[in-house]
Amino acid sequence: MKVKVGIIGAGGYGGCGAIEILSRHPYAEIKCLVDIQDTGRLISEIYPHLKGFCDLPIISPDDPVLENTDLDIVFFATPDGVGQSEAKRWLKRGVRIIDYSGDFRFNDPETYKSYAERIGKKEPHKSPELLKKAVYGLPELHREKIKKASIVGNPGCFAISCILGLAPAVKYKLIEFESIICDSKTGVSGAGKKPSPNFHYPARYDSMNAYKVAAHQHVFEIEKELSRLANKELKITFTPHVVPMCRGILSTIYANLKEGFTLDDVFDAYREFYKNERFIRLFEPGTLLQTAYVRGSNFCNICMEFDKRTRKLIILTAIDNLVKGQAGNAVQNMNIMFGIDEDAGLLFSGNYP
Amino acid sequence: MKVKVGIIGAGGYGGCGAIEILSRHPYAEIKCLVDIQDTGRLISEIYPHLKGFCDLPIISPDDPVLENTDLDIVFFATPDGVGQSEAKRWLKRGVRIIDYSGDFRFNDPETYKSYAERIGKKEPHKSPELLKKAVYGLPELHREKIKKASIVGNPGCFAISCILGLAPAVKYKLIEFESIICDSKTGVSGAGKKPSPNFHYPARYDSMNAYKVAAHQHVFEIEKELSRLANKELKITFTPHVVPMCRGILSTIYANLKEGFTLDDVFDAYREFYKNERFIRLFEPGTLLQTAYVRGSNFCNICMEFDKRTRKLIILTAIDNLVKGQAGNAVQNMNIMFGIDEDAGLLFSGNYP
Amino acid sequence: MKVKVGIIGAGGYGGCGAIEILSRHPYAEIKCLVDIQDTGRLISEIYPHLKGFCDLPIISPDDPVLENTDLDIVFFATPDGVGQSEAKRWLKRGVRIIDYSGDFRFNDPETYKSYAERIGKKEPHKSPELLKKAVYGLPELHREKIKKASIVGNPGCFAISCILGLAPAVKYKLIEFESIICDSKTGVSGAGKKPSPNFHYPARYDSMNAYKVAAHQHVFEIEKELSRLANKELKITFTPHVVPMCRGILSTIYANLKEGFTLDDVFDAYREFYKNERFIRLFEPGTLLQTAYVRGSNFCNICMEFDKRTRKLIILTAIDNLVKGQAGNAVQNMNIMFGIDEDAGLLFSGNYP
Amino acid sequence: MKVKVGIIGAGGYGGCGAIEILSRHPYAEIKCLVDIQDTGRLISEIYPHLKGFCDLPIISPDDPVLENTDLDIVFFATPDGVGQSEAKRWLKRGVRIIDYSGDFRFNDPETYKSYAERIGKKEPHKSPELLKKAVYGLPELHREKIKKASIVGNPGCFAISCILGLAPAVKYKLIEFESIICDSKTGVSGAGKKPSPNFHYPARYDSMNAYKVAAHQHVFEIEKELSRLANKELKITFTPHVVPMCRGILSTIYANLKEGFTLDDVFDAYREFYKNERFIRLFEPGTLLQTAYVRGSNFCNICMEFDKRTRKLIILTAIDNLVKGQAGNAVQNMNIMFGIDEDAGLLFSGNYP
Repeated sequence: MKVKVGIIGAGGYGGCGAIEILSRHPYAEIKCLVDIQDTGRLISEIYPHLKGFCDLPIISPDDPVLENTDLDIVFFATPDGVGQSEAKRWLKRGVRIIDYSGDFRFNDPETYKSYAERIGKKEPHKSPELLKKAVYGLPELHREKIKKASIVGNPGCFAISCILGLAPAVKYKLIEFESIICDSKTGVSGAGKKPSPNFHYPARYDSMNAYKVAAHQHVFEIEKELSRLANKELKITFTPHVVPMCRGILSTIYANLKEGFTLDDVFDAYREFYKNERFIRLFEPGTLLQTAYVRGSNFCNICMEFDKRTRKLIILTAIDNLVKGQAGNAVQNMNIMFGIDEDAGLLFSGNYP
Repeated sequence: MKVKVGIIGAGGYGGCGAIEILSRHPYAEIKCLVDIQDTGRLISEIYPHLKGFCDLPIISPDDPVLENTDLDIVFFATPDGVGQSEAKRWLKRGVRIIDYSGDFRFNDPETYKSYAERIGKKEPHKSPELLKKAVYGLPELHREKIKKASIVGNPGCFAISCILGLAPAVKYKLIEFESIICDSKTGVSGAGKKPSPNFHYPARYDSMNAYKVAAHQHVFEIEKELSRLANKELKITFTPHVVPMCRGILSTIYANLKEGFTLDDVFDAYREFYKNERFIRLFEPGTLLQTAYVRGSNFCNICMEFDKRTRKLIILTAIDNLVKGQAGNAVQNMNIMFGIDEDAGLLFSGNYP
Repeated sequence: MKVKVGIIGAGGYGGCGAIEILSRHPYAEIKCLVDIQDTGRLISEIYPHLKGFCDLPIISPDDPVLENTDLDIVFFATPDGVGQSEAKRWLKRGVRIIDYSGDFRFNDPETYKSYAERIGKKEPHKSPELLKKAVYGLPELHREKIKKASIVGNPGCFAISCILGLAPAVKYKLIEFESIICDSKTGVSGAGKKPSPNFHYPARYDSMNAYKVAAHQHVFEIEKELSRLANKELKITFTPHVVPMCRGILSTIYANLKEGFTLDDVFDAYREFYKNERFIRLFEPGTLLQTAYVRGSNFCNICMEFDKRTRKLIILTAIDNLVKGQAGNAVQNMNIMFGIDEDAGLLFSGNYP
Repeated sequence: MKVKVGIIGAGGYGGCGAIEILSRHPYAEIKCLVDIQDTGRLISEIYPHLKGFCDLPIISPDDPVLENTDLDIVFFATPDGVGQSEAKRWLKRGVRIIDYSGDFRFNDPETYKSYAERIGKKEPHKSPELLKKAVYGLPELHREKIKKASIVGNPGCFAISCILGLAPAVKYKLIEFESIICDSKTGVSGAGKKPSPNFHYPARYDSMNAYKVAAHQHVFEIEKELSRLANKELKITFTPHVVPMCRGILSTIYANLKEGFTLDDVFDAYREFYKNERFIRLFEPGTLLQTAYVRGSNFCNICMEFDKRTRKLIILTAIDNLVKGQAGNAVQNMNIMFGIDEDAGLLFSGNYP
């Protein structure tokens, strides 16, 4: 018996990533692909690498066939605002939901509002009553709730890299909470498929920059999750950067190590915290933690260092923003929701170089 | 029952590629990894993306354990010269061989000599008596012979892209043989893992060049295979280029279309010739045949155009030089040799973007 | 006394390139920058690297101040169609013109029409009477005419790389004319500043492809110039490719060397033909002709090889598509038109790496 | 009258950068190029882009001609250890020195020792008596001393980007000194010309990582200069990263803004501090400070933001690591030493894109 999946927003990078994984997934089957662009064309015309793997047509969200498609789950691989408008329609049919956007990452309308303002959305949430049901889709922190969730809000890519890097240190209170700084660097694919002057090839070649400094929306979900772990409200500093590569997020996280703790203590805490996690790989201090080693895979690689001159703990995390940072993590959530092996369809190492 | 595989030269890109594929192969098992460098270290220390997928140690070719390892096949993912020295030792034990280098791509010492001169080797072949047994490992042309082969010479990456692009046109005599020009462009990974001034990152960034113009060794295997198909000795012009990307070969192949034939005729011929081939994908004229669409996969994408002003047929082929151009094609050969589904372990689409 | 220059289309890459050069030119002065976008903003806000070098505002083509600006020459760094509509207005005022587009590269409306069809323009030329006056702006071939020209049609970037590579061989009849194939590879900046799905960073990263195969518009100016040199109508095969780098065109040109000639003869012919050319650099056979060595400079580097097995002459040329292929060549034309040292403002080597 | 310059270590990237600038410098002349590799070859054979700009031969440091070459200054574009061994020989002849390495960046042997340990050098400084004479070659901080210096220690590239970003904030005591974190990202050219596995093109493509975390040697010169400005000993946290591009350093600098100050105060302070600096360009908060806008130029672009939620001041600086970070800054020092216009030979904007 296979999980029957529909993908809404199939034509974007997030949809494509889900198709890549699900088309080789042993216990899932893609039943329909939905988008508002390119309707009527085969997905393998849009993404020729899928030819022979998934040759379904893209249908419109209004297509009547959709009502009669038997589905267990839909992936909303759509921009902010779509999931919150469409979710009820699916829930009513008993179809569960994983949403890639910020629509279901928060449990209360107020935090959602702070988030939404940072992406230029002024309207209130369209389904505030669903927020309480929504589960934050980070398996390493919320596995039990995800199992039973009808709506999972798949986390932001930066948020995943920062939360996984900080969770044990915060939980075990190894660091001074007010000192946390997350300096994150992403490849350009994080900006999505839509062309823009800033992500035009020549404009981006041999260039890097910080952006949305002190203004990026992912900070709220990082703070929410860390505050929960700390049992105390935290504020962090978060700066995203874009560098000229395609895939990968490297987060360099700084915090003052509390007196009395050593780097070994920290490493032990992380080992303990992540001991049963299939997709977390810890590396010893001194490792060159390269993003290439998670490219195309669902892993989060983590290592840490200590600057004894300044008592700074420096935590490094690497993920593929489109896999563990998006589609891979979503499939991991799906596996949990349907009682499948958590790593089903996700056991690929990526290619090197 | 799984095919028991040993990989010699495991530490290079070609070895790594084989490990990536074989570690998820349903009917194969890696039993040992051999190299002259990094012996004693785990392969997953050298290539951390393999952590959890293959954590075998690298052993020396002299390691006594090798003699007692039960193997069905060894991959020589080694430079020219190694396979020809070591092959007999393995054949004697009944172990079959796939060699990545030029050591077993030719059936006679003379052609081998022309080849060897171009890579600066002056000594004669060390196992000339084995050349007759060796089968050229291009499944699309030699499937039947590969089945029974004890030694398969895995083709050169450029050769694969050119031969697959030309085979139907030559076989069906659609083009003027003396007019063939292959202009090939490769990513830098084709140069292997060893650092050199010419492939140092800053030296290669934002730069491209032709190299070994009129002097590249792959021309001989291209000519040999095409001559066989043509029943006539052919000479071609072949120019390799290196462009600043990691993976991918794009070959732009020119030949005069014979009077009386149209582009439709050519397309029909290719469709017929490749109708049962799992790893050949034909695309209609007008397609933008991008190498990204074969990156990480074992496919060869092909399309063709016709310049009616000059009667030139222009054939475009795209492969991933490290997959269909090397390790993927080798595993495809292995599958054939052991009667396994030809696409076992090879059904991955690659990631996009 | 400085040449007073206006730049129309200042906001594109071609305008920017002209500003970079002219702002350090000892005998020229930029008097106004015109564009239909970003009017009112400083050019150094659009291109911050120009801050302190050129801080002029962008004005609209309708700005009345334009009529009263004293100018000697305008650069039309504009798309096809603009120059032919606007040229008369400027010529009437005695202002000379260099146009970057195809508007003035042809002397007769028929050839222009073939060209225009390939870029999707169906209307006839808007100033056909000006075509006769227009001079093809390749200094190495038309220096004397450029001196006195009122309108110069700056050549296409691919065309420059192919014509300079072939001119001596064609002029001295060293090659068989019907055998010419130009396989050109360009960096992405050749596609201009406007974002599009095909030149979106992630879509272009680690990918290459041929495009407009047997359908690119530059073929007509290449053929026109070569036919003039040959005293005979030539047809050539031309295939452009785009590779993931920013700047640079490498053209690999194939032709059958006529019986009786040697590679030395060819090299001598090129040395003779280009002996007084400041911006042509010949390199000995065997040179790795890398595009990095012309990046940021106005040079065309050329070398050649001979494949004696197939009697193919293989000529390699490298230019920076935005300098010798566009703005640098335009300034070189300007220098000639105003009797300035031809290399004034153009003596920069580029940076390496 | 031109300054007569010798370049020792001419074959590396730092030597090449100096040649690029000095070969177009109006008041300087390169008299000799020295290196231990490639002696006897023309520099323009090693770096073909220099052909026609500088065609001097490379001579050995032992070449007797060196003794008789009339020189005003030598650039030691050499690794650590060379300058300290050779300096006296030149000083004795009255030749002034600019050294690129860490050999003369410190005025006391102890700080030098801390520095040297981090680059694996255990021997004491070979000319400790010269350390007192050496001037730290950051013109924006030490212009008056540089004028009269016989030995200038050209700063580390990271150090320049961090010191220029912090100097006004530290001098005017706007920030809490113990809270400073410098997170720097560099292109690969910073690693120099020598090939290594870690900077091999395929290994570096589409990958980034931090390195020498809590262990990089540049931290000492940053602390020394900031401590001097603060009149108090400072310790900072510094993390370098390498990203897959060629040129450019982006430093993201974090510090707690002291109570009572606003972002406007900070901006005013920077404007005041740098008001006469030709090579510092300040940008308003909200600017996307891209490294492409300093590529190939001698500028340091700076902007700053404030995170009011955490009271963090975030300062961003961008330089070209090989120009303002190395050869350009060295020439700026030379201009100051010889009373030439400080921007002579350095007024180039770089090319975009």
